[in-house]
Amino acid sequence: MEKKILLTERDMPTQWYNIVADMPNKPLPPLHPATKLPVGPDDLAPLFPMELIKQEVAAEQYIDIPEEVQQAYRIWRPTPLIRATNLEKALGTTCKIYYKYEGTSPSGSHKPNTAIPQAYYNKQEGVKRIITETGAGQWGTALSFACSQFGIDCEVYMVRISFDQKPYRKILMNTFGATVYSSPTNQTQAGRNALAANANTPGSLGLAISEAIEVAISDEQTKYALGSVLNHVLLHQTVIGQEAKKQLEYTGDYPDIVIAPLGGGSNFAGLSFPFLKDKIAGQPVRCIAVEPASCPKLTKGKFMYDFGDTQGYTPLLPMYTLGHTFTPAAIHAGGLRYHGASVLCSQLLKDGLIEAQAIQQLECFEAGVLFAKAEGIVPAPEANHGIAQVVREVNKAKEEGVAKTILFNLCGHGFVDMAAYQDYFDGKLQNHSFTDEELTAEISKLEALQP
Amino acid sequence: MEKKILLTERDMPTQWYNIVADMPNKPLPPLHPATKLPVGPDDLAPLFPMELIKQEVAAEQYIDIPEEVQQAYRIWRPTPLIRATNLEKALGTTCKIYYKYEGTSPSGSHKPNTAIPQAYYNKQEGVKRIITETGAGQWGTALSFACSQFGIDCEVYMVRISFDQKPYRKILMNTFGATVYSSPTNQTQAGRNALAANANTPGSLGLAISEAIEVAISDEQTKYALGSVLNHVLLHQTVIGQEAKKQLEYTGDYPDIVIAPLGGGSNFAGLSFPFLKDKIAGQPVRCIAVEPASCPKLTKGKFMYDFGDTQGYTPLLPMYTLGHTFTPAAIHAGGLRYHGASVLCSQLLKDGLIEAQAIQQLECFEAGVLFAKAEGIVPAPEANHGIAQVVREVNKAKEEGVAKTILFNLCGHGFVDMAAYQDYFDGKLQNHSFTDEELTAEISKLEALQP
Repeated sequence: MEKKILLTERDMPTQWYNIVADMPNKPLPPLHPATKLPVGPDDLAPLFPMELIKQEVAAEQYIDIPEEVQQAYRIWRPTPLIRATNLEKALGTTCKIYYKYEGTSPSGSHKPNTAIPQAYYNKQEGVKRIITETGAGQWGTALSFACSQFGIDCEVYMVRISFDQKPYRKILMNTFGATVYSSPTNQTQAGRNALAANANTPGSLGLAISEAIEVAISDEQTKYALGSVLNHVLLHQTVIGQEAKKQLEYTGDYPDIVIAPLGGGSNFAGLSFPFLKDKIAGQPVRCIAVEPASCPKLTKGKFMYDFGDTQGYTPLLPMYTLGHTFTPAAIHAGGLRYHGASVLCSQLLKDGLIEAQAIQQLECFEAGVLFAKAEGIVPAPEANHGIAQVVREVNKAKEEGVAKTILFNLCGHGFVDMAAYQDYFDGKLQNHSFTDEELTAEISKLEALQP
Repeated sequence: MEKKILLTERDMPTQWYNIVADMPNKPLPPLHPATKLPVGPDDLAPLFPMELIKQEVAAEQYIDIPEEVQQAYRIWRPTPLIRATNLEKALGTTCKIYYKYEGTSPSGSHKPNTAIPQAYYNKQEGVKRIITETGAGQWGTALSFACSQFGIDCEVYMVRISFDQKPYRKILMNTFGATVYSSPTNQTQAGRNALAANANTPGSLGLAISEAIEVAISDEQTKYALGSVLNHVLLHQTVIGQEAKKQLEYTGDYPDIVIAPLGGGSNFAGLSFPFLKDKIAGQPVRCIAVEPASCPKLTKGKFMYDFGDTQGYTPLLPMYTLGHTFTPAAIHAGGLRYHGASVLCSQLLKDGLIEAQAIQQLECFEAGVLFAKAEGIVPAPEANHGIAQVVREVNKAKEEGVAKTILFNLCGHGFVDMAAYQDYFDGKLQNHSFTDEELTAEISKLEALQP
């Protein structure tokens, strides 16, 4: 048995899988916050190129991946599927554990899977500059790289606390040619408001989104790009799960359980949607989204219409949310600190097609260090959430005396996040839970937004 | 054509290639500094397990890779060979450029190729603890990982300036379970001497080697490990070139030029030795070792007997050297700041079988940024030296109106070295050359050591 199951470039998927076609209940439409009517393509045109807007509302089951995008994917795709033989040994389990490893990409995570097509479609439609925000820095790095591939200027609003704490991420973006701002800036109204309210604010992802959108809509040749949450972003990520399915076919195995962390939803969707297609058709596969206990939108949030950003610049989206004014605890998995879950993942959870688990960060780091020693890859703190859930499922299987086949998404490596591990070793990390009252306070503010 | 030429695990080499068998002039023996007589196995026994000592003096052309080592290699090997199509486009060249990418390993460089067998042989012979030194941190990380795989304690003496400037590297080693000291320490005589002479010394690789050796010989169950220079280290790295040859066979190409950076020599040897086998047999392939202009042992050093460390604890080795008391300029490619070149590479250079080039660091970083934007991998500063030479060869081929096939070793990624890129962008990096007088002063001190 080979430890790594590799595909050739000829085996790569040539289409993205659109789960909307197979969902028993279709997602509710995004609404205009003023009229509470469904937003149309024209409402989104200042932000996104038309081809991405079409994908956002597409109903067909498969959408062709343009040849130029496939070409750029080949810089690092297909990614390996790896049998975690050493982790199995360390856990003393008879379960089979496989992981899809997305850390071999230019930015070290799954994010370039959507950055590349987004830059491509913008280029096709004559866009000269793309503005985005980034929290921990993964998305900003991915878009910087993608823009450098297609010759588009890239500007990134990076949440101030990450800008200060993660200088390596900023330098990576600079290396790929992007300009990076510490958000909030005084270049936008949203930024000036935030600075006026608190000059020392650490910033937030929602605020950085507000700034990026404000700049993007002010200039016709400039567009905006989002690294998660939206339907077209999740669509692009399905190359992950499609590859994994083909790779598992070579082994003769099919997963009983599919696990991935969930921040906005693109990582989880990327791996799980091609397997959910089978589940909808009757295959008994469990798909588990893992969120940090300090930002528990799936397990403690409510399914409601809410904004995607802090300022309320986006359409209203129907999702599991903690409220757009919710401030997650300052944990080290920055990519999971987002108040809501994507519309598609939210609908699937509502319909019982996926499961959700919340895990505290100490348990996640413990699992990550175990994994690093066994498998030789130091995971990104976000990825540790998936690994911690794998450990839980392995223990459960042991108690039940059964052997499961488990697949998880190792969505990125931790080379640029080592400070988080230092804090863990130094005992500086803490678990954090919000009280029900704290959570209810923010969520109840959403009542006024409902149609 | 696939961009990435992948091998399966079944295609991996099962033997290491020992170039000594094919060298027209065999390497001169290491000498005991007191007697000036060749050192025997017993002299080395306090430092290394016997199986590695045997490999150090082996004469056979191929040496079997133990099954357990092959198993551990499969965690990340075989590594990809990649056609640098985007770099070719960026350079506007008709040359074919291929790179072997060793950055997918647990530590992000080629170093685990020797760390794994070294840990394995130590384990076989009952060793409980391995001591080593590390400069930039690549070797220490690799050995930490290898020791965690085989259940051996690992202690690393890390050059103080790197310990302070590269905290991420230290944390990586901690994550793999190693103990890391800032060298010089007051735990060794060598360290105390250095601190007495200058309490604020930044440390040096030669000094850290002295400390590690001192600790290793003081305890029977403890051995020492070296990450480059020695014959057995170079031997283990030949998996790189053997894989690359097989991968190139699939393309139908054979390189006109093989390029790799040279610090101690293991990276260069790893890629080039299997091709030098062909060259010795008549194939017209040029193998070019690239060193930093600020540490020019190959281009401006002298072929003499010299110590491997600062204190003079090692046997005398016949090599191109700048003198063991030479202090290289403080450039960012820490892995290339070593005063001498391995015995094997030195003999091959003396015999005209390989070439050497020295390049300044600004040219190297310029090439590295170009590569990152094109190919999506930010190279380690050491690796940039190889890329800079590729650019030179491409330009030369353009002038001559010919198209060459060039292969280079991208020995590691730069995710943990981003501070170096920041310094480059900020204009803080400088070129540096030593005058002939400066170089002669240190080298002339070696006369007394010659047999």
